[in-house]
Amino acid sequence: MSLLPDSITTLIAALSRLPGVGPRSAERIALHLVQAETGVVKQLADAIITARERISFCTTCGALTEKSPCPICDDARRDGSLICLVERAVDILSVEKSGTFHGKFHVLGGKISPLDGIEPEDLQIAELEKRLATEPIKEIVIALGTDVEGDATSFYLAKRLARAGLRISRIAFGLPAGSGIEFADELTLSRALEGRREML
Amino acid sequence: MSLLPDSITTLIAALSRLPGVGPRSAERIALHLVQAETGVVKQLADAIITARERISFCTTCGALTEKSPCPICDDARRDGSLICLVERAVDILSVEKSGTFHGKFHVLGGKISPLDGIEPEDLQIAELEKRLATEPIKEIVIALGTDVEGDATSFYLAKRLARAGLRISRIAFGLPAGSGIEFADELTLSRALEGRREML
Repeated sequence: MSLLPDSITTLIAALSRLPGVGPRSAERIALHLVQAETGVVKQLADAIITARERISFCTTCGALTEKSPCPICDDARRDGSLICLVERAVDILSVEKSGTFHGKFHVLGGKISPLDGIEPEDLQIAELEKRLATEPIKEIVIALGTDVEGDATSFYLAKRLARAGLRISRIAFGLPAGSGIEFADELTLSRALEGRREML
Repeated sequence: MSLLPDSITTLIAALSRLPGVGPRSAERIALHLVQAETGVVKQLADAIITARERISFCTTCGALTEKSPCPICDDARRDGSLICLVERAVDILSVEKSGTFHGKFHVLGGKISPLDGIEPEDLQIAELEKRLATEPIKEIVIALGTDVEGDATSFYLAKRLARAGLRISRIAFGLPAGSGIEFADELTLSRALEGRREML
């Protein structure tokens, strides 16, 4: 005899496929849900279905949105001459939270990684080139991570996208805010030194 | 402008009400779900609704079950003369996992706690007394925790349920399995000493 009724076992299996939810927390959440008020449980299930149904990718930039073009692409107050290039749609959220970027976005959809079979044509680079041809873009800020694939993709893009009148930059790498020298690994520190800026 | 579409914000709010899910993991799960395959998402929502609809409390012992009486109450091979008294329905799972108990269960539904307004009549004690009157019960093993309320409730029950021919025991408290003396706090160690057993 299984220890738990089938419907709970099924729920635990479905929950443990979520990111960051292990078997123990899946069990805890499932046992909470079967004892919670029916209204609250239905609300959660509805929220899941509704979000999945309403959300799609912006046809211009690739952001997660309920309508296309997304509110950022559609916002005339944002600087259309400045495009921040990110790997995934969720990265837009991180950049937006920083509150320092007022341009628009473009989601690449991945990083070049021949070992994983991801070639440049698998990414939304052609779409970006189309935007370069039609929109008044003056600068592209590449905001990819600092791992091998992030570096390779950034250099590939800088070369491929280069054209007269277009500035291509990459976000700075260095010490994280609030961190001390003693906590920085060698590579971070070497990048921080390379990226040093004059103070006066 | 909110950073995220409304349907995602609603989903994050619903997810962060789950036990052990903080705002960051709720965001991570929500962003995963809106980008996951529709089938997988629907499966999760269905599992939540189905489990909540099918699960109820066993009318005899109070366990979570899809049918009443539950498979444990209904299992003739289990020892009906031995009842393990637990606080919550989910505690049955912990006892069952230990694999050493072959009797039946009774869920108390809480612990006596006058400060929180939980009096004996709020617990399933009358139901247990009814079972004592009709079932051939010879021993009740009280498996409540070892905090103040657990202790008080255990002593209250031992006194109230006492009758000729009924043994009332409480699970042992002592060193957790695999732990050393140096990790045990004073109270655990004093309980372990009190509960010492002759070896030969």
